[in-house]
Amino acid sequence: MNAPFTQGDVISSDKVEGTNVYNTAGEKLGSIDDLMIDKQSGQVRYAVLEFGGFLGMGTDRYPLPWSILKYDTAKDGYVVPLDKDRLDKAPHYALDDTPTFTPEYGTEVNRYYDERNI
Amino acid sequence: MNAPFTQGDVISSDKVEGTNVYNTAGEKLGSIDDLMIDKQSGQVRYAVLEFGGFLGMGTDRYPLPWSILKYDTAKDGYVVPLDKDRLDKAPHYALDDTPTFTPEYGTEVNRYYDERNI
Repeated sequence: MNAPFTQGDVISSDKVEGTNVYNTAGEKLGSIDDLMIDKQSGQVRYAVLEFGGFLGMGTDRYPLPWSILKYDTAKDGYVVPLDKDRLDKAPHYALDDTPTFTPEYGTEVNRYYDERNI
Repeated sequence: MNAPFTQGDVISSDKVEGTNVYNTAGEKLGSIDDLMIDKQSGQVRYAVLEFGGFLGMGTDRYPLPWSILKYDTAKDGYVVPLDKDRLDKAPHYALDDTPTFTPEYGTEVNRYYDERNI
């Protein structure tokens, strides 16, 4: 196991993965499970939130634009401006049914969050 | 454990981490240990190669620019145009002595690889 860390203006993927995600009301939504990276550019397109279910059963994956994640040092987690109902309606998938991340899928994800002026 | 995958033009960080890295001569150099991500932009600045040592003892970490990693499906790994001697002289650190990834450090890393016209 690596020593996860964040230093200066970079953060390691080890540190991001597993980090809790809260909404602005302080409710825990889930945790970051994975990052989806553009192969060519190396840009993180989505941080994938594991959300829903109970004790890890029946959870789904919610791709979030990187830009909506704000790190809160007091919480040692990310805070996103989404209540659970809004998140519930966001694009998501079961882990066994991961979609192909086409540009169209990306547009769908980004539009969902853009429309809410995040 | 997640199902690592690569689909279309994105790849998951789970899939990248642990992937073997070879040079063009086919020698295994090591494996990707971690990714260093710009907090603001979400851009992967470096893929961190674990290299050197023996059976995981005494290995060091070598930050590689994302752009020099070329995925080879036949090898199921990345291929980089670096022989071991060149890599040995590249910027690196012990895991317990991870530097702060300042812009200056980034310049040092990128210059090392740029000078070799990679």
